[in-house]
Amino acid sequence: MDVVARPLDALNKARNKRVLVELKGGKQYIGNLISFDIHINTVLENAEEREGGEVKRQLGTVFIRGDTITIISPQ
Amino acid sequence: MDVVARPLDALNKARNKRVLVELKGGKQYIGNLISFDIHINTVLENAEEREGGEVKRQLGTVFIRGDTITIISPQ
Amino acid sequence: MDVVARPLDALNKARNKRVLVELKGGKQYIGNLISFDIHINTVLENAEEREGGEVKRQLGTVFIRGDTITIISPQ
Amino acid sequence: MDVVARPLDALNKARNKRVLVELKGGKQYIGNLISFDIHINTVLENAEEREGGEVKRQLGTVFIRGDTITIISPQ
Amino acid sequence: MDVVARPLDALNKARNKRVLVELKGGKQYIGNLISFDIHINTVLENAEEREGGEVKRQLGTVFIRGDTITIISPQ
Amino acid sequence: MDVVARPLDALNKARNKRVLVELKGGKQYIGNLISFDIHINTVLENAEEREGGEVKRQLGTVFIRGDTITIISPQ
Amino acid sequence: MDVVARPLDALNKARNKRVLVELKGGKQYIGNLISFDIHINTVLENAEEREGGEVKRQLGTVFIRGDTITIISPQ
Repeated sequence: MDVVARPLDALNKARNKRVLVELKGGKQYIGNLISFDIHINTVLENAEEREGGEVKRQLGTVFIRGDTITIISPQ
Repeated sequence: MDVVARPLDALNKARNKRVLVELKGGKQYIGNLISFDIHINTVLENAEEREGGEVKRQLGTVFIRGDTITIISPQ
Repeated sequence: MDVVARPLDALNKARNKRVLVELKGGKQYIGNLISFDIHINTVLENAEEREGGEVKRQLGTVFIRGDTITIISPQ
Repeated sequence: MDVVARPLDALNKARNKRVLVELKGGKQYIGNLISFDIHINTVLENAEEREGGEVKRQLGTVFIRGDTITIISPQ
Repeated sequence: MDVVARPLDALNKARNKRVLVELKGGKQYIGNLISFDIHINTVLENAEEREGGEVKRQLGTVFIRGDTITIISPQ
Repeated sequence: MDVVARPLDALNKARNKRVLVELKGGKQYIGNLISFDIHINTVLENAEEREGGEVKRQLGTVFIRGDTITIISPQ
Repeated sequence: MDVVARPLDALNKARNKRVLVELKGGKQYIGNLISFDIHINTVLENAEEREGGEVKRQLGTVFIRGDTITIISPQ
């Protein structure tokens, strides 16, 4: 019954791996995917923020509210 | 009872096929449709991002949050 | 009890007929209404996209996320 | 128990009468109110679209998604 | 248990009185508060619309969708 | 079980005290916090509206719809 | 069963510590994280507001509505 792939499976596979998270306003966060929930609230570690391709800040741990996210892509 | 067509049927038919996904901000993702859920959260593989008709990035796997999507169209 | 008209009745009557769907961003899709659900997620076939009155693209089948839609009007 | 007036009562009274519907983006639809639901999804018949006071289009039947509506006013 | 004041109490007190309703887009409606519900959908009678301090229109009865409202203030 | 602090505790402590409420559009309301609910719908009394630091209006009682609020801070 | 990390765990670890909270409109609040809930409504104490890197205001206690938040990062 559960053999059909579901979107959160792709996030589960990316746990503890480096991912890119993009927000509605254009900001990008790249870090290790520690956790996420059904709202797509997401926590990254060793995260950095980029904007327009440039690194803006080192953030360590960052909690990102799901409803601000457009895409998550394993790097 | 289930003979009336439902919108997710169209997405089910497009599984493992090439689809175009457009976002509210104008970005386009083209890739193989791996999975989606009732929120229209969607995962593509072998995905590329286009903006204004031009390929911007190769993304491999990309999770797209449903509420940022406007249309999905099989290619 | 069900004699009071409900909004989805109007969409049911338009099944398999040509409809115009307009989105919040101003885009228009014209196609045959195949299906819709309570979120107003909608699938058109033989669809074309118009913007500012001009045909921009032939899309074949298109899934339109309900929350991006402003109006649907049978043609 | 139901003697307190509720907002949908005002829409019920306007059924089959001419109403003005305004949308967040500024568009106006004027037509006969056929139906509405708790999301304020609304169907008008003999509808015309106005923008900036001018008639833009005759639409016949139009389904308007509730979350795009700001006001409805009987004419 | 119900002795703690709740926000809708303030609207209940204003029933049948003149209130100002402001919308996200800046429009103002002033009229007699006839009804409201938990979504803050609101009906005014003898309503007028103002924008930038000026009266724009006499509207009679107006149904205002709750999610477009920012404040309601008894006059 | 309830020993962990919750956000609404902070609002409860501010009841009947002077608070600043800021809205998404930048407006500020300062008044006595009379009531709030889980949607953060909020009622102030003896309220004044400020914009860009300046007092714009005396409002007496004002109901503020929760989803338009960004912050509430006791003064 | 609960061994998988969840996003709110990261916020729990940051309780009583200094965090940065960023809002959709660009504002930043830095303060001690006192409480949060599942909507990510958040209370900070000893908070200051920054905009464009500059301290704008000392706020003491501030309640931040969850749906306006983009990220929370322990400092």
